[in-house]
Amino acid sequence: MLGRKLAERLAREGAIAGARVSQMSLVDVVEPALPDGATFRVDALVADVADAGVAADLVSSRPDVIFHLAAVLSGEAEAEFEKGYRVNLDGTRFLLDAVRRVGSGYRPRVVFASSIAVFGAPFPDAIGDDFHATPLTSYGTQKAMGELLLSDYSRRGFLDGVGVRLPTICVRPGEANRAASGFFSSIIREPLNNEEAVLPVPEDVRHWFASPRAAVDFLLHAAAIESAAVGDRRCLTMPGVSETVAGQIAALQSVAGDAPVRLIRREHDETIMRIVAGWPGRFDARRALALGFRAEADFEEIVRVYVEDELGGRIGGKES
Amino acid sequence: MLGRKLAERLAREGAIAGARVSQMSLVDVVEPALPDGATFRVDALVADVADAGVAADLVSSRPDVIFHLAAVLSGEAEAEFEKGYRVNLDGTRFLLDAVRRVGSGYRPRVVFASSIAVFGAPFPDAIGDDFHATPLTSYGTQKAMGELLLSDYSRRGFLDGVGVRLPTICVRPGEANRAASGFFSSIIREPLNNEEAVLPVPEDVRHWFASPRAAVDFLLHAAAIESAAVGDRRCLTMPGVSETVAGQIAALQSVAGDAPVRLIRREHDETIMRIVAGWPGRFDARRALALGFRAEADFEEIVRVYVEDELGGRIGGKES
Repeated sequence: MLGRKLAERLAREGAIAGARVSQMSLVDVVEPALPDGATFRVDALVADVADAGVAADLVSSRPDVIFHLAAVLSGEAEAEFEKGYRVNLDGTRFLLDAVRRVGSGYRPRVVFASSIAVFGAPFPDAIGDDFHATPLTSYGTQKAMGELLLSDYSRRGFLDGVGVRLPTICVRPGEANRAASGFFSSIIREPLNNEEAVLPVPEDVRHWFASPRAAVDFLLHAAAIESAAVGDRRCLTMPGVSETVAGQIAALQSVAGDAPVRLIRREHDETIMRIVAGWPGRFDARRALALGFRAEADFEEIVRVYVEDELGGRIGGKES
Repeated sequence: MLGRKLAERLAREGAIAGARVSQMSLVDVVEPALPDGATFRVDALVADVADAGVAADLVSSRPDVIFHLAAVLSGEAEAEFEKGYRVNLDGTRFLLDAVRRVGSGYRPRVVFASSIAVFGAPFPDAIGDDFHATPLTSYGTQKAMGELLLSDYSRRGFLDGVGVRLPTICVRPGEANRAASGFFSSIIREPLNNEEAVLPVPEDVRHWFASPRAAVDFLLHAAAIESAAVGDRRCLTMPGVSETVAGQIAALQSVAGDAPVRLIRREHDETIMRIVAGWPGRFDARRALALGFRAEADFEEIVRVYVEDELGGRIGGKES
C-alpha cells in the first residue's frame, strides 16, 4: 500500500531529493500497479528479495535511491516464524549485501521502512530517541535487526541508509491486511464506507499514528535529507499522533457524525489484546522533528486525510 | 580464554545452578584444553558453529545449559567484515535455530556472552538499563543482533536465554588477542611480568571493566537465575568498574610499585583511538545488581585478582 502511494506520488511529482527522476523500478512479490502519468520510465517486476540472486539483479542498474518497504507484517510474522525471518531479516540483509557487493564507490541512499514495533513495553510516558529497542514481536525483532544492519553498513561506507520507524499507518485504505494493528484503521474506514467494523481491544488503548500521506512524506524526506545531519544513528522514530481508541472514535464522530460510530462493534480478541499491550502509545520524536519530518496535528486531521485522499472528500455522498 | 576459565571452574565445583554436572562438552574452532580434576565426563570437540549442521549435532544431546561464547572479536570483526557476520551473527542464529528445531519441550538455558560494545557514543554520564544500543563497530552490531534473537527465541518459548553484556575483561591473561581493547589488559599484564607495554590512547580515556573471575561469575550466575525474574528483556548490562587509563596505572602502582609503571610506553594509534572513542565509560547496571550479579569494587581489586589467579599471588617473585 505505501509502495503504491509512494510510486503514485513520484509519478506525479517527477522529482526526488531535488532531482528529476529518470527511471523507477517497482518490485514486489505480486505484480506492482504501474502509476498513472509518469513522465519517466517505470518498470514493474515480480520478485522476492529474499530469493538468492534477486537482490544483486535489482541493484545492478545502480539506482540512486532505494526504498526498502518489503515486509511480512506483524500478525503474519508472529504466525509464521520462519517466513518472517526469511523475508524481514534475510531479505533486508540480502539487499544491503547486494549494494555492498556492487562496490566501485556505489553508495545509494537506502530508505528502510522500520516500525515503532521495535519497541516493547514497559514504556515511559513518552518514549525518547535514546530508549532501547526491546521488541515483543518477531516482526519488531526483525525490524530492529534490519536497523542495526542499516547503521553498520552505512558506517562502513557501503551505502547511505536512513531508517524511518513508521507509526501505525492509519487510516489504511482498501482491504484489511494481516497486521495485528489492522483494527485501528478498520474502525474508521469501514464506518466511513457504511460497513460494520470490529473493535478487538478496550477503548483506553493508546497508540501512535500517522496517515498514509504523512508516511509517504516521511519516506520522501528520508530520501532527501543530508547524510551528515543524520550522523551514525541512522534510524529515526517518526513523529505522529498519540491517541486512544476512544479519541479515534471521537474524531470519527466529529468528522462524520453519529451514524458511522454506531457501526463499531466491540468484540475483544485476546491474541490482539496481548500483542497490542506491548506496543507504545506516545513518543517524543525530537530528532526527526529537528530533521524536518512532519506528521498530522491530531487524529481528526488523520480522518480528514482519509476522506480527502480515499473518498474524494465525500462522506456518504456528501462533501465533508 | 573465558571458556577455558569457565570449564576449569565447573570442573572444580562440579555443580551448576544448584545441580550436579553429569557431562560437559567443550567446543571451539581450535582444540579446547580439557580442565583438570573433573569428576564428570568432559568431551572436547573442534567445530565451527557457523558451519552447516554443526549446531544441530551439538544440541542433539540436549544439554540443560549452553554457554555461547564463540565470537570473532572487535578488531578482527572490523578488519574482516564477512567473517565477523558469519561467526558472530550466523553462528549465533544457527545455534538458536538448532535448539528451536529440537522441539519436544526442549528449552535449555542459553547464556549468551554479549558485550558493552552494543553501545555507541554519544553517551550520558552513566548509561542506564533502558539506553538504546547504537553500536559503532560491526562486532557490537553483531552482538546486538544476537541479543535481539535471544530475546525473541526466548519469548517464543524455543529456549530460555539470558544475555550478559560483559564489561571489557581486564586483566586478560596470556598473549594479546585481536580485540581493539587489548591494551587495557596489556598495560597491566606486561609490566607485572616485567615486559614493556604499549599504551595507544590518552590517559583520560574512561572505560568499564571486570576481571576474568568476575566474568565467569556472571556466566555461572546467568545460568542459575530464575527465568521469571529476568522477564522479556533477556539481556543485561553487567556491573563493573568505571576507571580511566590514569586510574588503571595508579592501581598498578599501588599494587606493584613504581617499576612496572615505567614499562608503559605511550604510542598513540589513530585506529584504536577512533574505535575506543565510541565506547562507553560508565554504566548504571541496576537490573543486573538487583538480580545478584557482582563485580569488583575498584580497579585495584581487579589488579589483585590478576596477581592471585595468574601469578600465584607473587609480583616479581615476591608475595603481593
